[in-house]
Amino acid sequence: MTSLPPTLVVGCGLIGTSVALALREHGIDVHLRDRDPEHVAAAVERGAGSAEPVHDPALVVVAVPPRATAAAVREALETYPAAVVTDVASVKGSVAREVAGGAGLDRYVGSHPMAGSERPAAGATDAAVRLVEEVAVMLGAVPTVMDADTHDRAVALVSHVPQVLSTLTAARLVDAPPAHLALAGQGLRDVTRVAGSDPALWRDIITTNAEEIGAVLTAVRDDLDTLIDALRDRDVVGGVLEAGRVGTRAIPGKHGGEPVELVVVNVQVPDTPGALSRLFAHVGESGVNIEDLRIDHELGRPVGLVEIAVAADRADELVARLTERAWSAYR
Amino acid sequence: MTSLPPTLVVGCGLIGTSVALALREHGIDVHLRDRDPEHVAAAVERGAGSAEPVHDPALVVVAVPPRATAAAVREALETYPAAVVTDVASVKGSVAREVAGGAGLDRYVGSHPMAGSERPAAGATDAAVRLVEEVAVMLGAVPTVMDADTHDRAVALVSHVPQVLSTLTAARLVDAPPAHLALAGQGLRDVTRVAGSDPALWRDIITTNAEEIGAVLTAVRDDLDTLIDALRDRDVVGGVLEAGRVGTRAIPGKHGGEPVELVVVNVQVPDTPGALSRLFAHVGESGVNIEDLRIDHELGRPVGLVEIAVAADRADELVARLTERAWSAYR
Repeated sequence: MTSLPPTLVVGCGLIGTSVALALREHGIDVHLRDRDPEHVAAAVERGAGSAEPVHDPALVVVAVPPRATAAAVREALETYPAAVVTDVASVKGSVAREVAGGAGLDRYVGSHPMAGSERPAAGATDAAVRLVEEVAVMLGAVPTVMDADTHDRAVALVSHVPQVLSTLTAARLVDAPPAHLALAGQGLRDVTRVAGSDPALWRDIITTNAEEIGAVLTAVRDDLDTLIDALRDRDVVGGVLEAGRVGTRAIPGKHGGEPVELVVVNVQVPDTPGALSRLFAHVGESGVNIEDLRIDHELGRPVGLVEIAVAADRADELVARLTERAWSAYR
Repeated sequence: MTSLPPTLVVGCGLIGTSVALALREHGIDVHLRDRDPEHVAAAVERGAGSAEPVHDPALVVVAVPPRATAAAVREALETYPAAVVTDVASVKGSVAREVAGGAGLDRYVGSHPMAGSERPAAGATDAAVRLVEEVAVMLGAVPTVMDADTHDRAVALVSHVPQVLSTLTAARLVDAPPAHLALAGQGLRDVTRVAGSDPALWRDIITTNAEEIGAVLTAVRDDLDTLIDALRDRDVVGGVLEAGRVGTRAIPGKHGGEPVELVVVNVQVPDTPGALSRLFAHVGESGVNIEDLRIDHELGRPVGLVEIAVAADRADELVARLTERAWSAYR
């Protein structure tokens, strides 16, 4: 992209302001709009752009909540007849369907920043898609193009349904006695982490993508019925558990690459600020790359267990190096 | 404990060998048994104890798979009429019920190393409980005493049901197109992490604690039915999501303390061995303690986002210090 004419960002929340800041870093003339003037003022103060109206933007980025997205996209397409309009909503089919009935369909290119940009099935021009892809690349994303329905089916499976099941797990804890909750370990914290997310945002996402989510949840309910009826049956329970394990192996490795066989090296670490720093200095010296890591806290003890996932063929080496450095490390 | 007479560890898997090694570190005479002689030989080579038979152990630690535990406990109580017998199975009620029918009930004290030691409701003597508690403390645990049924109800809620729901989430991925799985983020990885655990071990745990697990899973199914029928209803969906968020807040903070309000500070980190070490050195300098952390990998980019959870009132300070050190850090 040689020079991008003015861009209007509609919605100065976390995503809108982040996009605006990134565009500003590339020298682009960014204008900001939000129904709350305080949000605009805060974004301007952070250097995300100008609060002045813009008359002829080349690009409009709609970054409002999912439920308000379709209306904002239609308004932008009507108000700025030369602009390419994109949005960042995490459900795309419902926006595409509403936009399909209005003007400027060939200038609308839906995006979802989770994974770059997606092109809706509606008839955007190649030039419009290219513009949005170029912006995505400029902002450091790797664009993936798919139609809106495929996008919504995919995110139902890998994001929305996991959110629901995390929520249902956490909801069981509401009335639990503290003595029971005191036995909680890292497994429970991992499963329920996303259930701590903003309910208002997720309510919009789930109600908007209800059809695709419902299809997957119905399959989950069938599995759950089978399991509840056969919780003492070793074959049924074993079969469900095995399917789950196979499923985890289908998730791509980091950076979107092939799944890599990882091994976890466990290291006991005193729970003080300097300890982790020392540990990672020693891991760094070993030359073994950290693929993933987490801290598991032991109940009632001021000490943490750090789990460092590394490539399977490097684990023994890491254990040896850390043991030399007086860490209690084991596979 | 002034001096502990010989201890027999039955079962030289990960837990049995770990307990044996820890007892050896305290100078205790440990004898090892396993139905597979190779497992004993491997444990002996690691310095976990002796393969010689023991004639009059004061303590027998049964560390065999859950399904084989009750029989091994009964056998130990009968074979060693002076020994206190404990076990490490993660389900306690079924063991307690089987042991209740045999000899030596007053010498049996069930344990679960996850959270120290638990005393079954059956009639162990105070001296027997004290011995097992002393060993637990010696090994660095914080003993929590509860009856077997309470234990099983608690772990169904905080461990077994989360395992099942993680598994059901992951099982949906088995036949998913790779293009859908490519959109997977950290949320999916967190929710499904425990589903990657050993299916044989979990099959034993679930079938053994079927009743308590079934009760919680039935409540989950009711919630799921409600949700599936009302996925477009903003009030119903919002209510379920809110209950889930409340549930996450019921989980105690690390070290079993009160829940602490945490804020996540996000830091962009190049994906090289030295980078994490540098980051944690700078976090250490800041004096802000890390409460939790995870690495989130961005799709298709050789860079990681490190999420550092810190006490809410220290987050701004950490962001400021890391920004001074040229990190891209934000709340």
